[in-house]
Parts: sequence; C-alpha cells; structure tokens
Amino acid sequence: MSVVLAAPDKYVTMKPKEFREVVRRGEYTGGTGNVCAGYARTAMAIIPKDFALDFFMFCHRNPSPFPIIDFTEPGSPHPLRVAPEADLRTDVTNYHVYINGKLETKVTDIMSYWRDDLVVFLTGCSRGFDAALVSADIKYRSIGVFSTNISCVPAGRFKGPMRTSCRLVKGARDVVRTIQISSRYPAYHGAPIHVGDPAVIGIKDLYHPDVLSRGEAISPLEPDEVPMFWGCGMTLKAVAMASKPPLMITEGDGAMFVTDLLASDLAISS
Amino acid sequence: MSVVLAAPDKYVTMKPKEFREVVRRGEYTGGTGNVCAGYARTAMAIIPKDFALDFFMFCHRNPSPFPIIDFTEPGSPHPLRVAPEADLRTDVTNYHVYINGKLETKVTDIMSYWRDDLVVFLTGCSRGFDAALVSADIKYRSIGVFSTNISCVPAGRFKGPMRTSCRLVKGARDVVRTIQISSRYPAYHGAPIHVGDPAVIGIKDLYHPDVLSRGEAISPLEPDEVPMFWGCGMTLKAVAMASKPPLMITEGDGAMFVTDLLASDLAISS
Repeated sequence: MSVVLAAPDKYVTMKPKEFREVVRRGEYTGGTGNVCAGYARTAMAIIPKDFALDFFMFCHRNPSPFPIIDFTEPGSPHPLRVAPEADLRTDVTNYHVYINGKLETKVTDIMSYWRDDLVVFLTGCSRGFDAALVSADIKYRSIGVFSTNISCVPAGRFKGPMRTSCRLVKGARDVVRTIQISSRYPAYHGAPIHVGDPAVIGIKDLYHPDVLSRGEAISPLEPDEVPMFWGCGMTLKAVAMASKPPLMITEGDGAMFVTDLLASDLAISS
Repeated sequence: MSVVLAAPDKYVTMKPKEFREVVRRGEYTGGTGNVCAGYARTAMAIIPKDFALDFFMFCHRNPSPFPIIDFTEPGSPHPLRVAPEADLRTDVTNYHVYINGKLETKVTDIMSYWRDDLVVFLTGCSRGFDAALVSADIKYRSIGVFSTNISCVPAGRFKGPMRTSCRLVKGARDVVRTIQISSRYPAYHGAPIHVGDPAVIGIKDLYHPDVLSRGEAISPLEPDEVPMFWGCGMTLKAVAMASKPPLMITEGDGAMFVTDLLASDLAISS
C-alpha cells in the first residue's frame, strides 16, 4: 500500500463528519494533514485494557509527545469528547499494527483486530499550532522528525526514546513569539523541548531527519534561522518498538484522525 | 480531632521539605492553605489499583475539579514529579478515610491503611492561582464551596455532582482579567465554570455555602461584585460518596499536600 500524504483539494474544505464517512466507505486511504482545514486532528494509540493504566501514566509523565485529548471506554470505538459519532475502527485512513513491538501489518480498517478489551487514546498533533503560527505570520519551515538522545520518563511497562519535530524559525523575535504561541497549545505538544544547537539533544545531522516533512532535500540553514524542537507523536512508534506490548495499533504515516473540534478550541486563553 | 485551618506563622516561611518533616513527626496536624508561601499544594485521592484506570479517565473528563498534577506507581507513596522524597502516608497533616463511600475515620497518618495496590493521585488546588490574582492586584473575596446541579462526566465506576469554589470579583475589568489569569493555570482548576447568576448552576443561596471560606458570615454582595465559580477539589468527597469505592483516602479539610514545586512553575506561558 502506498500512502498519499497530501490529500486532494476536495477534502480540504470538507467537514469532518462527511470526510470520515468517505474514509469509512474506503474511498480515501491517504494522509490527513491538510484535510478539513481548521479542525483538530490527533495521533492514536490502541492498546489492551491491561496496559491502559500504564499508558495513561506514561502519557502524563511525557505530556510533550503525548498530550491526551480523548480516550474511549474499554471496548468502545467512539471518542465521546471529540467525535462521538465516529468509529475509530474504520474512520482513520490507514493503520499500523504492532505485535510484540514489531510493525506486523498496515491496513485500512481494523475490524478484524478489534477486541472488547481495547482502549483508544487520542493525542494532540502539532498541525494544530502550525495554523496559529501561520496566523501570527511567523516565518518558518518544518523540516522533519528526528530521533533524540532524550528518554521518555518510563511508566509501568512503557519506555522509549523521544522523537521530535523540527521547525526552522527566522529571526530572534519570531523565536520568542513561537515559544509564546506554542505554549498556549499544550494539546498540540505545547512549548518546545529545545531551541538551538541540535547536537545538545543528540541530533548529529540536521539535514537528514528520520522523516522528511516535504519529501525533498533540506536547503542549508540560513544565518538568521533558529532550529526549534517539539515533542512528536511519532515517538509512539519508538515506544511500541521499545516496550513491546502484545498489541498496539497506531494511525499510519500522516494519517491522523480528524475530530469535530476546531483546532482553536484547544488553545489556552492568553 | 479538631482541625486548625490557619497554620502558625513559623510554618508560613518554612521550605516544603522541612515542613513535611514536621508533619511526618506528628508535630502539626492542621490546615496547610497558608504554609510554605509560594509553593504549590495539592488535593489527594488514594484508591486501589483496580480503580485507578477508571479514576484516570474520570479526572481527564473532569479537568476543572480534577487537574492531575502527579500520581504514584501502584504501591509507592512517593510522588516522583512534585516531591520525590516525600512519603504520602505520613506527610499530609491529616487524612479522611472513606470505606464504601462513607467517611469512616479521620487520622493523621495512614500507615495502617497502606497496601501494595494503592495508587495516589495529586490534583491541583486553587490556592495556586489565588497568589497570581493577588499579584495582579485583583480585588476579590473567596466566600466558600457550594454544591451545584452540574454532574461530573462519569467514567467507569466514578460519578458525582460537581462542587465549586466561589469568589466575588469587584468590577467588570477585573472579571475579564480574572478569567485570563485563571485560564493560565489549568493545573489549579483553570478557567471558571460559570460567571454571574448562581441560580444557573443550582446555587439557591449565595450566603450559605457548604463550606465557609473564612468561618464567618458572608457580608452582602456589593453592586459591582460579580460571583465567579471554579471547579473545586472538594468535589472528590461527593464523588467518593456517590461512587462508593471500597476504599478512598483523601486529605482532611484544608490539609493539602505541600509539594516542592513553586506555584508559578505550573503556569502556562502567556
């Protein structure tokens, strides 16, 4: 299955409910970063109830990569806060299934994996505050996702290295404003975890991220660009691999779940 | 046991570690609202691990009364984020023990109730943002805690009515600023749940709260005073009574746990 990351224009202006119906019918299986403009989207972790308390604790200890926005009752696929009509077994465009820490398969629905003891956690995605940065006329470029030498704080049976998304922000004034603005969005990873020299958090080569944001080579850092780093939901895949739960299902690459909430609904007042 | 709510002056300037040692030795069993000025204090719920996932979900669905600041691993009495050296079995001045939803006893340590399957949750206390209001020169009076007609969002085996703390804020400009300031402190209940007519949330008599803040009659509302209401940690006792877990231990009246964090450490940047 090849994944299309940028969705066709017709999905950009669609409302979330209608878009999820398209996905439920199997008519779109690609990326969701640009669909349903203005609405909040989330990363996702589905795990057995036996692991849910440990995972709750793990998210709480690591709010930067894992800001919990909603979760389901064990056995329920309906996220009551953010999209009560949605069915998380079918309404995500594509899924990654990890068995004992290994990526076992990629599928476009998880009906055959669903069990009565599964719990879904939905965690914030930085696309939410990107919109706020654009509104504030901050000049920056997203370059990609990197592994770091920072360990997540372990909790119960969960552990793993933190991954980070990097933005290059132009000009010292905008660095300050970017910290202020992202701090208002704890639901979308909040304040940066690091600003400046990538080597401090174990990143040796800024031009070769684990995942390239735009699928093209990164042009050289300009003199007034400052690298800024945020906790990233893709940390989850590293945690699955390090922690080896018997089953964990996540959204596929760039296949965030689209909620009924406006991205701005999750801002802290300032 | 009679509870002293205002602590002697010598405890006001004490550092948290030293104060907790005083409490651990049994030398002070009263209120902690005014001790260790500038430091964050928390409400507390201790429950069996079997109920911990339900309680995590319940707090997440009701972040206004129950903003989780820290929790312990099952069987551990040490809150690793906020005071790793503390022992929550002895370092709270006094405790209320609920058995099957009934207040069974009040004690000054819980060594005899402790079990290897207990989990401690620490949740924010509005004393934290009171300091920010005072710093901002907001004119207000705290009058007390009221029951409301608002139900907490149930989760698992937990449910119950929300209780609210009421402050009377003077002048429309300060009402706006109070909303802004409290919104920056989600860890201390965050934004108000209601502003204005108490009847809207089921409060019939503003002059007779369930718990009086100052232990004295409330003088009449002045023309430019606006009642403002926040989620309150005392909701927990109503939840214990409504949900009837086999065991729940809370802090005693006004006996919040004192952490090593400064109150200002938990503010959202603005």
